Amino acid sequence: MENKILNKLKNSLDYLSGESISSDLNISRSAIWKHIKSLKNKGYIIEGKSNKGYKLISCPDILSAQELIPLLKTNNLIKDIKHFYELSSTNHSAKELARGEINNGTLIIAEKQLCGKGRFDREWISPSSGIWFSLILKPNLPPMEASKVTQIAAAAIYKSLLEFDIKVNIKWPNDIYLNGKKICGILTEMKCDMDRIHYLILGVGINVNLEIDDIPDEIKDIATSLKIELNKSFKRSDILVKFLNHFEILYNKFVLQKDISEVLSICRENSNIINKKAKLITYNKEEIVTCLSLTDTGELLVKDSDGKEKLITSGEISFRI
Amino acid sequence: MENKILNKLKNSLDYLSGESISSDLNISRSAIWKHIKSLKNKGYIIEGKSNKGYKLISCPDILSAQELIPLLKTNNLIKDIKHFYELSSTNHSAKELARGEINNGTLIIAEKQLCGKGRFDREWISPSSGIWFSLILKPNLPPMEASKVTQIAAAAIYKSLLEFDIKVNIKWPNDIYLNGKKICGILTEMKCDMDRIHYLILGVGINVNLEIDDIPDEIKDIATSLKIELNKSFKRSDILVKFLNHFEILYNKFVLQKDISEVLSICRENSNIINKKAKLITYNKEEIVTCLSLTDTGELLVKDSDGKEKLITSGEISFRI
Repeated sequence: MENKILNKLKNSLDYLSGESISSDLNISRSAIWKHIKSLKNKGYIIEGKSNKGYKLISCPDILSAQELIPLLKTNNLIKDIKHFYELSSTNHSAKELARGEINNGTLIIAEKQLCGKGRFDREWISPSSGIWFSLILKPNLPPMEASKVTQIAAAAIYKSLLEFDIKVNIKWPNDIYLNGKKICGILTEMKCDMDRIHYLILGVGINVNLEIDDIPDEIKDIATSLKIELNKSFKRSDILVKFLNHFEILYNKFVLQKDISEVLSICRENSNIINKKAKLITYNKEEIVTCLSLTDTGELLVKDSDGKEKLITSGEISFRI
Repeated sequence: MENKILNKLKNSLDYLSGESISSDLNISRSAIWKHIKSLKNKGYIIEGKSNKGYKLISCPDILSAQELIPLLKTNNLIKDIKHFYELSSTNHSAKELARGEINNGTLIIAEKQLCGKGRFDREWISPSSGIWFSLILKPNLPPMEASKVTQIAAAAIYKSLLEFDIKVNIKWPNDIYLNGKKICGILTEMKCDMDRIHYLILGVGINVNLEIDDIPDEIKDIATSLKIELNKSFKRSDILVKFLNHFEILYNKFVLQKDISEVLSICRENSNIINKKAKLITYNKEEIVTCLSLTDTGELLVKDSDGKEKLITSGEISFRI
């Protein structure tokens, strides 16, 4: 009902009388008043005049279903949106949810993460000015294809930000850089057997409107936000919606048609590691390599210090040699 | 305490008086009587004579911690044994347990599975005469190495049964055959991110003493048991313990020294698919191939109907062309 009232307010240029809302939606005037109060608590600025009714002055920049659904152009990617003001981490909540019979296409969004995590359990600072979400997916894929979903997300981030004239780089396999500093990370987790993915959780964090003070001193040289770099704020829902729209197209192309070519082109052409010397950290060793190229199956081809070329399926590239 | 009493009985060749048990273990005669009754309920045959005391006549063939621990020669693989008379499936229970802070090295055993599962959710008939268990492992490995744990288990099964002069074949990647029929299946599941396995569940089912009537008619031509093939019963705890001993050695060699050579030799030399024409079923297609060899990284090299060679990381081989 709250949603219906909000939609009526959004679609009205002028004041909307309590009486007309009441008769259109068949609810009492006091019920309307309660819903208006709840909307105001969420940050909607609604003017109420006794002789005219209610008028929506402005919507908060929150990533609720109410705000996102009218903007989404996805066909079938998003089945359910669960929005929270605070979570320990969206991936953690997604895992909790995925244990039950949770739908493919459930999107979990937090305004703020209390214990956001990056790869290797590293802390990810997540104040309320960023975009922090996890998407539960159940693709009919074997587990070794899961890392491609990370690259699809990276390409979708690239395409979304390009719509705001922001050109980012992709640091294989899961980080997005702007002006040489990280602005976005992707953490993909899954449960599977050797034949099939049972569920996959795509966790994404984008440093949108974080201020310089939001970034801890010890990572100020490697992490940044869109606002810090571009000196302006962005409406987070616009970015998230653009991401979901792009992601759906690229994801469906991969899952349904096995076509990952556009994704790999984007990741390749906008990579910030190709032809660079870097430290490659894999689960059992660290070594200095030269990154050569991204293969057609999404692996990284590197040359080690002995000049030997090898394909890397998973690992971390660090420029801190 | 029950365990202590059982051990005393096991170590005594003659009758053990209630008085001596009572004073050695510092418990009352009525407490002893209760524990003896509980042991009898589990299938231990214990003779009690009023003037002599208790004597252990025979132990049941159950896979309880009480029976397994004295036989185990593993160093650090098994940290905890959870034994159940009935479970829906041991992999299912392992997943439930692994959600909490469950130890690496927890072994879950069921005398009987009510809903045992093989690959692709296929039913696995699991009456109380087989060995059905799941082992929770937390190796420091990236997810793409998980399928090797299946092959380690297959090699360990091979080595264990060879100790009983039973020579089985391995059908890549997860089935064990005897005389052309399946006697054992392995189902490996995991939770992971792209860098690390969070936990891995190794599920194994061995058709040990199943009678011909235990095997449903529709699979009688493809499934069998040790008893059906060899016309004798086996002590299940002996087989399980030998498996765990062999598995630990091969698993540690892989996880600690990255040495999988013995495992792959066993899987290669005892494969029943090499040089055979078969149907290869992968997640998105089925095709007729000729199986050529098992690579040094555990993939299957096949030749398709166009004569093109390719490496298969996961899939199912079916002889029902």
